[in-house]
Amino acid sequence: MGHFITFEGPEGSGKTTVIEGVKEYLSKNYKVMTTREPGGIRISELIRDVLLAKGNEMDGRTEALLFAASRRQHLVEKVIPALERGEVVLCDRFVDSSLAYQGYGRNIGVDGIWSINEFAIQDVMPDLTIYLKLDPEDGLERILSNKRDSNRLDNENITFHKNVVLGYNELSDNFPNRIKTVDASQSKEKVLEDTLAIIDNYLIERG
Amino acid sequence: MGHFITFEGPEGSGKTTVIEGVKEYLSKNYKVMTTREPGGIRISELIRDVLLAKGNEMDGRTEALLFAASRRQHLVEKVIPALERGEVVLCDRFVDSSLAYQGYGRNIGVDGIWSINEFAIQDVMPDLTIYLKLDPEDGLERILSNKRDSNRLDNENITFHKNVVLGYNELSDNFPNRIKTVDASQSKEKVLEDTLAIIDNYLIERG
Repeated sequence: MGHFITFEGPEGSGKTTVIEGVKEYLSKNYKVMTTREPGGIRISELIRDVLLAKGNEMDGRTEALLFAASRRQHLVEKVIPALERGEVVLCDRFVDSSLAYQGYGRNIGVDGIWSINEFAIQDVMPDLTIYLKLDPEDGLERILSNKRDSNRLDNENITFHKNVVLGYNELSDNFPNRIKTVDASQSKEKVLEDTLAIIDNYLIERG
Repeated sequence: MGHFITFEGPEGSGKTTVIEGVKEYLSKNYKVMTTREPGGIRISELIRDVLLAKGNEMDGRTEALLFAASRRQHLVEKVIPALERGEVVLCDRFVDSSLAYQGYGRNIGVDGIWSINEFAIQDVMPDLTIYLKLDPEDGLERILSNKRDSNRLDNENITFHKNVVLGYNELSDNFPNRIKTVDASQSKEKVLEDTLAIIDNYLIERG
C-alpha cells in the first residue's frame, strides 16, 4: 500500500501551492498522484453538477449526502487503486472538509456528518493530514484581495468561515497523530518547508 | 400533523393497486396525497438521473448515499409540508426499501444503511407501514408474466430477491408496532380489505 496524504484548511490557506511543492519534492523518490474530488470520476462529476446546478435550493443534509456519495466513488475508482499500486496520493480536501464545513460551518453536527462519511469511506482514512491553519479574518482577506465579487462575502459568510476554522481546530486537537498543523500565515516558502518536514518525519516513521 | 403511511414489499407484491384502493377509501374523510421518490422534486429527479444514467458503473455505497440524498429532499420538500397541512401521505416505498434492498439484497448491511438513512430522515419515521408479503418465487412469477425481457432475471437476481424478502421479514419481526404485514398472495380484493382493516385500526387508535 502507498501513502494517503490529505490537505485541509479554510479558503485562502494556500493548499494548492503547498500540494504543488510537495508533489515536486516527493516525485524524486515516489510515484505521486495529486487529486481532489470529484477528480474526473464520471459519476462524481455528475453528482457535482447536481450540487452546483442553478436554482437547486438544497437542504443541508441532502448536500452532505451528495458530497459523501461523490467522495465514495472518487475513493473507490481513483484513490484506492493508486494506493494499491503503491503510489503517494496527495488529496486536496477529504473527510475533514465535510466535518469542518458541514458539521461545524453549516451546524449539521459533527456526529451525523461523521456517520455518513464513515459509511462512505469505511476504513480508508488518510495516513497523514496537513492542516493549513489560518485565522478566518486572514483567510477572508486573502480571498477578497484575489476576487472581484467581494460583496458575496457578507456577515453570514464570516460567521460561517469562523465556524469552519473552529471545526478544523477541534479536529486537529482530537486527532493529533493523524492531523498535523502548519501555520499558514507564514511565507509560502516557510509553509512548504514546515509541511515537508512533517511529511519527511511521517515517511521515516513508516519506514 | 397528518398521517404518514408507507407501503413496502418486493416487486410484484401489488403496492400500486393497494395504494389506489386506500386513497379512494380514505379520500371520503381525509385529504390524501400519494407519492413515491423522487416524486417530481427537481433535485431528487436529478439524483435519479445519476442513478439511472447508462454506463455508470456505481459502487453499492455510492448508490445507497444517492438514494438517501434523494429521500431527504423528497421528504423535506413534499412529505413534511403535506403532513404539516394535516394530510394523509401514502408513500410507495421509503426507508424500509433501502434497508431491504441495499442492506440485505446488496449485502451492504442493515446497520450502515440505517445510519445514513437516519441522517437523511432524522426523526420522521412512518406512523404506519404496510408490508405486502410475498414469497420471492411468487413475486418473480408475477413479474415474469408481465414482462417480456425475462432473461434478465437470472439466478443472481433470484438470490437477490430472496435476500430482499428475508430483509423485509426481519424488519417486520423487529418493528411489529409500526410494520403490519398483509399476505399479498391473496386476491387483490382481500389484500385491500386486510390493508384497510389495519389502517382503520391505526386511525381509531390515533383518535
